[in-house]
Amino acid sequence: MRVDVITVVPGMYPEVLGTSILGRAIATGALDVSVHDLRDWTDDRHRTTDDYPFGGGPGMVMKPEPVFRAVGSVRDMHPARPRVVLVCPQGRPLDQGLVRELATEERLLLICGRYEGFDERIRTLADDEISIGDYVLTGGDLAALVVIDAVARLQPGVLGHEDSAHDESFSEGLLEYPQYTRPAEFNGMGVPEVLLSGDHARIARWRRAAAVERTAIRRPDLIESADLDEDERAHARTIIEERKRTQDD
Amino acid sequence: MRVDVITVVPGMYPEVLGTSILGRAIATGALDVSVHDLRDWTDDRHRTTDDYPFGGGPGMVMKPEPVFRAVGSVRDMHPARPRVVLVCPQGRPLDQGLVRELATEERLLLICGRYEGFDERIRTLADDEISIGDYVLTGGDLAALVVIDAVARLQPGVLGHEDSAHDESFSEGLLEYPQYTRPAEFNGMGVPEVLLSGDHARIARWRRAAAVERTAIRRPDLIESADLDEDERAHARTIIEERKRTQDD
Repeated sequence: MRVDVITVVPGMYPEVLGTSILGRAIATGALDVSVHDLRDWTDDRHRTTDDYPFGGGPGMVMKPEPVFRAVGSVRDMHPARPRVVLVCPQGRPLDQGLVRELATEERLLLICGRYEGFDERIRTLADDEISIGDYVLTGGDLAALVVIDAVARLQPGVLGHEDSAHDESFSEGLLEYPQYTRPAEFNGMGVPEVLLSGDHARIARWRRAAAVERTAIRRPDLIESADLDEDERAHARTIIEERKRTQDD
Repeated sequence: MRVDVITVVPGMYPEVLGTSILGRAIATGALDVSVHDLRDWTDDRHRTTDDYPFGGGPGMVMKPEPVFRAVGSVRDMHPARPRVVLVCPQGRPLDQGLVRELATEERLLLICGRYEGFDERIRTLADDEISIGDYVLTGGDLAALVVIDAVARLQPGVLGHEDSAHDESFSEGLLEYPQYTRPAEFNGMGVPEVLLSGDHARIARWRRAAAVERTAIRRPDLIESADLDEDERAHARTIIEERKRTQDD
């Protein structure tokens, strides 16, 4: 998969892209990331990428011309037509379903802003606008790195063990079950006996039930769209109702 | 504000922390970030921080001992008692309200994982578990950087203009209004006339209405908890109902 990034802070990327699984994905060729400096498409001596907002107000706005030029020219650097994504707080919220969708693309082009926001006309360049969450960052670059990281780990061959992209958080719309490793006794805290039993069917049932319970307790908002059977759904609803009652008392 | 980070990839941080507004926040002393290598608290020759999960399954789990030692010793490096935050997909979802709350802390200690997850007993160390979104990353470090970035920009003096931390996305639970900058005409696309009018009261009304409309259209889930007056709420509900009807047809 190829990813192009257009940014005003290209220097922020190499260390993150060189680290750990992301670094390995790039080293093995599963992922090819090109980071482009938006200032290369400015046409003034100061290499200006922002300007004051019409109508006044605090902060600066990303100017349209350099971004239009950059997208046009980066698009032509590679034969595959990219899915163009504007990373911004007004976008569609990123979730694991959207990550899986993006991970199947041959090529992504991410546009990152700094400053207060984008000139509205820049949005016409994008196939999608994506937000990583309902909070405000100093710029879109950490959000772009989050998208790249999430998508990279789903590329074939990137994770060391084939199953681990499936057996994990949000795979069926649930939080992950509790995990334990050695020692079996630590600071007076043990490990659930079932995990030491060697009975794999029982372990699988325990983990599934624990994932459903944890999700019902911590993230009841996820339960309705989770992939549950009827018994699991009924059990989850009971937990949610009981907790509501306790909180109301 | 002081932030300590415990991680297995400390090398990922300096470039990001040196960039742009985050770099300035650190340079001016508004933010003091110390990144600690978890491997410094291991006790074997291979500096092992992970181990196989009890009960089997793919991937590796963060071992409890190094994390307990690291948190104990990092806690004592500074007189302020830190709020200890575990960054993980099972945590409370980060939103701008939680960012504002974290931003008032004197000190944060962020624990980042790699691998499949934490040994469950590590959770007992944390005052909070926080998730930046419902997607899976290769590790908690980009998530920690997101938390640091979001919190840093709310520290006094960090943003260049006093108002800009208020007048922005999610400030009243709404998406930001459309922004425009020069040129007034670009590629056949203009700028709403009101923004060129110089009538500041009218501009403020237009922006507020545009923010409400954009939120109702793009993120109807945010409307119920947004800070709206009765007319605005009624208008938003009408938009949401109309869009539902159109989609049902």
